[in-house]
Amino acid sequence: MTKTLAYLGPEATFCEQAARSYICNELWELLPYPSIEAVFSAVHQEKVDSGMVPIENSCEGSVNQTLDLLAYDYDLKISGEIVLPVKQNLLARPGVRIEEISQVLSHSQALSQCRKYLSNYFPEIKLIDMNSTAQAAQTVAKSYEPWAAIGTTEAALSYGLIILSPEIQDRVNNETRFITLSKETTTCVSRDAPPQKTSLLINLLNKPGALFKALEQFYLNDINLNKIESRPSQTGIGNYLFFIDIEGNYMDPPVRRALNGLQIIAHNVRILGSYTGAR
Amino acid sequence: MTKTLAYLGPEATFCEQAARSYICNELWELLPYPSIEAVFSAVHQEKVDSGMVPIENSCEGSVNQTLDLLAYDYDLKISGEIVLPVKQNLLARPGVRIEEISQVLSHSQALSQCRKYLSNYFPEIKLIDMNSTAQAAQTVAKSYEPWAAIGTTEAALSYGLIILSPEIQDRVNNETRFITLSKETTTCVSRDAPPQKTSLLINLLNKPGALFKALEQFYLNDINLNKIESRPSQTGIGNYLFFIDIEGNYMDPPVRRALNGLQIIAHNVRILGSYTGAR
Repeated sequence: MTKTLAYLGPEATFCEQAARSYICNELWELLPYPSIEAVFSAVHQEKVDSGMVPIENSCEGSVNQTLDLLAYDYDLKISGEIVLPVKQNLLARPGVRIEEISQVLSHSQALSQCRKYLSNYFPEIKLIDMNSTAQAAQTVAKSYEPWAAIGTTEAALSYGLIILSPEIQDRVNNETRFITLSKETTTCVSRDAPPQKTSLLINLLNKPGALFKALEQFYLNDINLNKIESRPSQTGIGNYLFFIDIEGNYMDPPVRRALNGLQIIAHNVRILGSYTGAR
Repeated sequence: MTKTLAYLGPEATFCEQAARSYICNELWELLPYPSIEAVFSAVHQEKVDSGMVPIENSCEGSVNQTLDLLAYDYDLKISGEIVLPVKQNLLARPGVRIEEISQVLSHSQALSQCRKYLSNYFPEIKLIDMNSTAQAAQTVAKSYEPWAAIGTTEAALSYGLIILSPEIQDRVNNETRFITLSKETTTCVSRDAPPQKTSLLINLLNKPGALFKALEQFYLNDINLNKIESRPSQTGIGNYLFFIDIEGNYMDPPVRRALNGLQIIAHNVRILGSYTGAR
């Protein structure tokens, strides 16, 4: 039976590109969902086998909504990841000239990635925050107004738009990391390599040196950190949750020793998942 | 001579509230600027003595634009901070009913802080990303369309709007931290207490255990960390800069020892400023 993968749609988002690259030639049916939360909800309710959402961009940083949905709203697992280079383009209907443009539509991350371009060329123009770059392209394609979208070359092709300005992102080195979500760690998209990366969510005690002592557990057990990200714990400025990515499977003895060691300095340690790292 | 303080305007933003609370009764002239970058630029060009911008929200996390302007674009100092509780309200012109509303305008952070409210009550409505909540209120006040803004009670009063729905932010405990910027550490808004908090920007070597060894320097010198925040270093996924806030003045001997110790594991350590902490 074909398995199903929900992604942040509509068609021709970066997320769909990421999903297609990720599954390679395997038999998965890709289903677009209108928001990041809708992907989480579909996986949670087992309407699909897996979901794909963006989690981090090399210029804009973490996708806060994805981190908060992981931390607070859903008890899902990370089962895989992929990193994709991101090129943003200014798209419009054929015939629309750049000087006529009255509004620019895109996902807020894409608007942020092109902040300098927009403030140079469209300092006075309304920026419309859409659920995805592809939804922006679709809206521009359907409208009779001289609007522009920021999105992929694929979005231009899918919705019959032209590229008015190519590669308008502020930084050349723009990449996005996507993760696959599943209800159980076992429902992951199959990969050849064994899981060698683990994502953790740690709620540390509010004590001096707590973060140092947490990192000491990894250091003493010879475990490399790939990433550390603090998120406000939503109980006021000064309290943080830590998203930590480490090398190794959560079943490896050194990782288990480190996780045990964390117990005395953390309120709570959640294993978000062990999976095959993108690089 | 009266000194001047640039803030993220227009009038009636949270940032203006923060600036007024911060200066207390001192003789400062407050000047609104249209964007966070415009405040940085005014301080850099010495058009004003100091500037105030938001840096962190307890629900939404860091204001990425402020962190990146500090890290990459301007060599300014942090000279002070203030933390303000944030209450967001749905504002419209008198006579506009909630069911007529065709667009909601606000700053992207305010839209994010009210994400659940918006997706419950306005799932299909356009969200317009403005430079500030006050600019959103001003635009709604000037328009003949049935638009709504998300903003402060002060913005409602300043622009003749009514509050259609009060306190619509998703989390009750919503606070924002603002910093004052100056060209030199000496040009800070005067405060009675001595500076006892220091903000650092650390570009660590990409070596196993580097972050652990950095935090070890603070631990060994008995220095408490208030905050650690990683930001992608814009050279691709996997490389990070660290914004670290510690207790103590950068001239204190333990802090100097820790800063010296950091040299062997960091490409670069920048002291963003020592100042009086908000709490």
